[in-house]
Formats: sequence, C-alpha cells, structure tokens
Amino acid sequence: MPAETEAVTAAVLVIGDEVLSGRTRDANSGYIASYLTNIGVDLREVRVVPDDEDAIVEAVNALRARFTYVFTTGGIGPTHDDITADAIARAFGVGIDHDPRAVAMLRERFANPADLNEGRLRMARIPFGADLIANRVSKAPGFRIGNVMVMAGVPSIMQAMMDVVGPTLRQGVRIESASIRADAKEGDIALPLAAVQKAHPGVAIGSYPYVDETGFNTNIVLRSRDPAGLAAATAAVEAMLRDLPRG
Amino acid sequence: MPAETEAVTAAVLVIGDEVLSGRTRDANSGYIASYLTNIGVDLREVRVVPDDEDAIVEAVNALRARFTYVFTTGGIGPTHDDITADAIARAFGVGIDHDPRAVAMLRERFANPADLNEGRLRMARIPFGADLIANRVSKAPGFRIGNVMVMAGVPSIMQAMMDVVGPTLRQGVRIESASIRADAKEGDIALPLAAVQKAHPGVAIGSYPYVDETGFNTNIVLRSRDPAGLAAATAAVEAMLRDLPRG
Repeated sequence: MPAETEAVTAAVLVIGDEVLSGRTRDANSGYIASYLTNIGVDLREVRVVPDDEDAIVEAVNALRARFTYVFTTGGIGPTHDDITADAIARAFGVGIDHDPRAVAMLRERFANPADLNEGRLRMARIPFGADLIANRVSKAPGFRIGNVMVMAGVPSIMQAMMDVVGPTLRQGVRIESASIRADAKEGDIALPLAAVQKAHPGVAIGSYPYVDETGFNTNIVLRSRDPAGLAAATAAVEAMLRDLPRG
Repeated sequence: MPAETEAVTAAVLVIGDEVLSGRTRDANSGYIASYLTNIGVDLREVRVVPDDEDAIVEAVNALRARFTYVFTTGGIGPTHDDITADAIARAFGVGIDHDPRAVAMLRERFANPADLNEGRLRMARIPFGADLIANRVSKAPGFRIGNVMVMAGVPSIMQAMMDVVGPTLRQGVRIESASIRADAKEGDIALPLAAVQKAHPGVAIGSYPYVDETGFNTNIVLRSRDPAGLAAATAAVEAMLRDLPRG
C-alpha cells in the first residue's frame, strides 16, 4: 500500500462499566495501539465510557468527526447490557434491525435452531448501511459504519476482528522509534535533553522516569517518521549521556 | 464522613504519548478506578491524550465541566515534554510560575543547590491559585486547582499523591457488588438474565463473556448502592442459573 503523506489518525472507544469500576483492566486499547503504531496510524485518543447510550453516542460522534478512524470495543454481545449497536445507529441517525448476512453467520455456528435464540439473534442487529466484520472465534460479527469499526470486548474476538479490519485501513508512514535507558535521574538530564530536542525538531523525544529496586531511572524514547533524523537524534542523546557529569 | 445522596462523579485524564503508542500500558487509571469505587465515587470516563497542549486543555475543560472531580496523571516532571502544568494553567485561564512552597519541598530533597537545577525547578511551576499535593516518594508535588487533581505518571508517585488527595474527597454511597461465574455461554443466559434485570431495576447487572481453556464462559456482576436489593438480585441470578437447561 502506498504511504500517505498526511497523517492517518485514530481513536479507541472502550465501552464498559467493568473497566470504569476497576474490576477489569482494559487490555484492548493497548493491543490496538500497538497494532496501529505498526501500520503508521497515529492513535490520538482513547476514551473509556460506561454502558450508557447517551455517553456512547456523544463519544462516537465527537471522535468520528475528529479522526480518520474510530475503533470501539465492547457491548455487542447477546445480553441486555449490550447496547453498542443501538448507540452507534443513533449516533449515525440510521435504523437498525437483524441483518440477514449476520444471521447467516450465526447459523453457521448455531446449527441447532434452538441454540439461535432471541438473545443470540440480538448479535445480528446491525445498523443500516454497515459492513460486517467477520470473526473466526465466535462467528458473531462486528461491523464498520463510516469510519467507525465496532468490535467485541473479549480480547481474542477483538483481535480476530482486527485481523480482518487491519488490512482494509489506510496506512501511514510508520513511526520508527528508539529507546535508551539513561541510567540517570530525569532531573539530571532535563536540560541537556531539551537541547537535543531543540536541535532535532523532526524527532519527538520523550522522557519516561521510573522507579525500580535500584532507585530512580529514566527511559528516553525517540520517535520519528524520518529514519535518518531518528538515527542522528539517537546518536546525540547517546553522546549527551556519555558526557553527563555523574556523581 | 456522611454519605451524600447525590452521586459523586469523576473522570481520569491520562496524559502521555507512550500510552497511545502502545509502548507503555496505563496502570494508573485502573488504580484510580478501584480507589474511587471503594469510596463511592463513580468513575464515569477515562481519556488518554497525547503530550499536546491543545489536546490537554480541551480534555480538561470538557471533563471538569461535567464531573465532580478530574484526576490527571503524567506530564509534571522536569523535562521538555512535561507540559501538563502549563496546559492546566491555560485551561483555567490563570498564570503559572515557580511556587515558593513547591520550591521549598524540592529543596528538602535536593539539599545541594547544584542538584536543584533549572530542569528540576520546572517541577515547582504551579498554576496560580492551586493547592499543592505533597508526595513522599519524590517530593515534587502535584497540585489541585478547582476540581482538578494533577498527579504524576510514575505509578508509585501517583499512588502516594492519591493517598494525600483521597481523604479530602467527598465520598458517595459505596456501590456494593457481587460476582457470579455462570458456567454457561452468554447466549444461553441472555434472556433469563434480562428478565432478572427487569425485575430488579435498582441493581445494575452486567454480563461479561470470556474465553478460557474450557471454552466460552460468563461472569455476571451485580452492582448496587442498596445491599438488600443486591442480595435479592443475586439470589435471583443464582436461582436462574440453577434452573437453566444445560445440554
């Protein structure tokens, strides 16, 4: 796929009371973040909202207006608290009903008509005008409407959907990165690091302090779409660290 | 502290390119979520935005207008990419400068004047009108301005700040919860679970499917501020599961 010169941007919208209560850690946004970084798509925002239709509608409309793509996770299962599909239909101002293509996918999995009950059939309710996103794990599809990809919350199912969606996305120029452990406290490198940043404006230099059993330390991460610029800035950071007065 | 009858609500704003690139997993929002749930504060939204002043200003202003409290993490260190304090000052339309109280805290840690360099002194830049949030781990303070608590991104430091901030917050009525493993596929319990939800409107019943080595399973989580209602709904879910036809 040809590289685009303008940035391709994205947001992730995680839907679920369970994440907001702290009971469940959201692993999906991290997975999607890594996935998008690998194909040169800039993830610019993550939002987590509850299983509340108004909150979902508002977030979807805010994010889809602003970014190239929006990826939602969660709330497309068979139970009463799965309200994402209805919220997306409302956000787009379109109707929603059982989609014959989605019903056919579910029939593949639930051959016994007794198993394809009213609850499971809820998973075939798809907003008008959406394309389905197949899923090899559970068969119940996600869907894409406009620039919004609506995916499951169960990580293995979401990842199967991402495998289908990923190749259809516009790719940007991949951001390359380099990571350097400073073996110094952040406060001791702040000024020389700022000087390196100033000299290399095409490279984003981030400083990430952490504490481990040896005390305070810092990771320096350099990111750029320009490999030569990245190499030059990385060399400059390494030289700066080498020359740092160390007590 | 007396229980409030109206809901006390909150949002978390995670500031950091590193989370959006997928390189670092955000652990802070999960920690804050659990902390708030324990004191009856409803976490209603989490946002992750990049180290970009416009994005921070916009998110802070959107969230502080909507929720009782906003907790930010990240971007208050000594390096050039730490821009949260400036963004918060701009969001509130106030000035920012080195705060003598914050400088004194840093002097406690960096007794040698050479160590308290210009980079570290950046950490004493505090928006006008803010109260400091002390931190026993690194001494560099966070701050509170209006209903916004500005905290560090390093988890151990953020947690130390939360220990200081937590007791100052209004507490709500704690939401009690019960969790039941259904040992059933979500699609097989969707309809009877919806009936239980309808009969117990004061209890939020969530259904969380997962896949493990034994196949598809479901956790049912019930949440309510009314302990008697929670017990009744929990008993109803257990009875429903007991009576479920199982192939």
